[in-house]
Amino acid sequence: MSEINSVGIVAPKTAHFNKSLKLKSGDVLPAFNLTYETYGELNADKSNAVLICHALSGTHHVAGRYTLEDKHAGWWDNLIGPEKPLDTNKFFVIGVNNLGGCHGSTGPASIDPTTNKPFGASFPIVTVEDWVKSQAMLVDSLGIDTLAAIIGGSLGGMQALQWSIAYPERIKHALVIASSPNLTAQNMAFNEVARQAITTDPEFYGGDYYEHNVVPRRGLRIARMLGHITYLSDDAMGAKFGRKLKDIIKYSFYVEFEMESYLRYQADKFAGEFDANTYLRMTRALDYFDPATEFDGDLSAALNKVTAKFLVISFTSDWRFSPDRSREIVKALLDNELPVKYAEVTAAHGHDAFLMLDAHYHAILRSYLSKIEV
Amino acid sequence: MSEINSVGIVAPKTAHFNKSLKLKSGDVLPAFNLTYETYGELNADKSNAVLICHALSGTHHVAGRYTLEDKHAGWWDNLIGPEKPLDTNKFFVIGVNNLGGCHGSTGPASIDPTTNKPFGASFPIVTVEDWVKSQAMLVDSLGIDTLAAIIGGSLGGMQALQWSIAYPERIKHALVIASSPNLTAQNMAFNEVARQAITTDPEFYGGDYYEHNVVPRRGLRIARMLGHITYLSDDAMGAKFGRKLKDIIKYSFYVEFEMESYLRYQADKFAGEFDANTYLRMTRALDYFDPATEFDGDLSAALNKVTAKFLVISFTSDWRFSPDRSREIVKALLDNELPVKYAEVTAAHGHDAFLMLDAHYHAILRSYLSKIEV
Repeated sequence: MSEINSVGIVAPKTAHFNKSLKLKSGDVLPAFNLTYETYGELNADKSNAVLICHALSGTHHVAGRYTLEDKHAGWWDNLIGPEKPLDTNKFFVIGVNNLGGCHGSTGPASIDPTTNKPFGASFPIVTVEDWVKSQAMLVDSLGIDTLAAIIGGSLGGMQALQWSIAYPERIKHALVIASSPNLTAQNMAFNEVARQAITTDPEFYGGDYYEHNVVPRRGLRIARMLGHITYLSDDAMGAKFGRKLKDIIKYSFYVEFEMESYLRYQADKFAGEFDANTYLRMTRALDYFDPATEFDGDLSAALNKVTAKFLVISFTSDWRFSPDRSREIVKALLDNELPVKYAEVTAAHGHDAFLMLDAHYHAILRSYLSKIEV
Repeated sequence: MSEINSVGIVAPKTAHFNKSLKLKSGDVLPAFNLTYETYGELNADKSNAVLICHALSGTHHVAGRYTLEDKHAGWWDNLIGPEKPLDTNKFFVIGVNNLGGCHGSTGPASIDPTTNKPFGASFPIVTVEDWVKSQAMLVDSLGIDTLAAIIGGSLGGMQALQWSIAYPERIKHALVIASSPNLTAQNMAFNEVARQAITTDPEFYGGDYYEHNVVPRRGLRIARMLGHITYLSDDAMGAKFGRKLKDIIKYSFYVEFEMESYLRYQADKFAGEFDANTYLRMTRALDYFDPATEFDGDLSAALNKVTAKFLVISFTSDWRFSPDRSREIVKALLDNELPVKYAEVTAAHGHDAFLMLDAHYHAILRSYLSKIEV
């Protein structure tokens, strides 16, 4: 299978860090691995690197396919490739699985060398700040000093924002998409319900389910269904499923409506693939992120050392990370007289719009990225 | 304890119906009980009766208290009493627990006389249409031919609407508050998540948990937390909890934020009180309700035999039953040239606003109800 504008067949790599990482919680990881992929070529002066930060359930596999038969391309394949908006003829693109993840980087399912058993519950809580710190170590290991850009949507956008705060001298551009300077109480509440579903699952075993050879499937299913509802707009769900019946009404608790069938399918699929302990930690990282906290809630003050140029994008129908929240970031950047472009894209798909191939949205990204000098 | 404008100490009654009720599903209940309460006095010509229809977790206990020491008044006590908006000096008010409920009326936890065991999973699916039919039987048993009004919020509003369709000659006024002519796909999806949480709880036992002396607490907890999030607006949650911490950040999965503590408390309380099988059936009744279905989706056609006068009220911050949905009802009534008053109340509390004592909202109800002739 040969695709036009694809980065083609790719393979993940692993970087091993044999030095300790002090986490925001105070815990220390003595050593860790980060799994990553790269697309395109690093140029001679190493000025064309772009880091992609993933959201809750994302991975390092951002573009391309693993085999010719591989049915699924990387999760942002519509964005990244030769002549795509993020053009791999120009940029060297890095995708990384975050610490605490379940796709190769050291996480709760990894073996703790001190016990020879999976970390499980003992794996520490990781934060956006910790991820950015570990990503900087990965960038170091690739011999790259300064990133041309960091791009992230949702939780990934929080990482891009945090990069601009933590390493102002190391990034030229931050692209913060469908994101927020912190979660609202409602978003935190949805996270809490997902976590309660997982941690009260009898097969959670306090986080040490690996040694019982089970996974808290029931809890993960609920978490995923809930996620899907909040990633889509009510209108998008309406357009996709409406009140369409699977068949004639049976007056039962079996699948009666198409939407139920969709949710159950997505739930089953996710519960078979994703690690519950990682899910818990990703949602906690979302909850805790709030760079304004140390500045009495003043986001403008929190961004006072930032030097990066910004592109901030939001989507009109995104009710989980609404345009209002993106505008808070824009305002704080403008308060600091930083160059920022902001686009509010009319899109029907809700939060998920940031992953979709929308012509207007992609044109904005293409235009912005084409003007970055490397 | 003596309260001003209270209906005072009340007691529930039970009506036994020894005749069969054919349900919309085709199932037949050979006999059933309805638990109800009444406040005020039925006048000589029996023209002053008002029926209150409850929402998902409501009961027949709408106003007053059971004892002098009772800490909790009925769920709509702020509305009902002498000189309150629904004035019991004028009206005879009836509260009823719906069929399939868990507060006295025949439901899944009731003993099936044919087996001498709780109905459990064998209790049929009940619909809004079935409730209205059984409520009409209760009204008959009280010797009342015509109701001055039916009042309901949320799922209760759907019952008020259904009364106007099924028994046009038996109701004078329908007050439909924070309601909708059917659920959106998003609302149905939230219901599905709640049901999946309950039915996949290992202590659900296919609905026959009574005989195992357990209840699917975990599932009920999740269902209730989810409910609470959707009953409140994001702004209301923000105003109530914001991102307030319980204590200093501990980087853990224990309660870190006040909102988490609130959700867990509400979840535990509900799981100790409410029957899971009832919850499943209430949400299914919500899903199925859609009077336009039999008219090719044309709500105006569905209401073509309605004669009642309507008051429709919605709340600006209600995202679960948004003003748009109330306006659909208003439009369909106007299409039929029916007298309808509509109020869109500016309120911060989301869907829960219909239960709250808001001066503007209550003034509207008082004004409308005061003009009803009995």
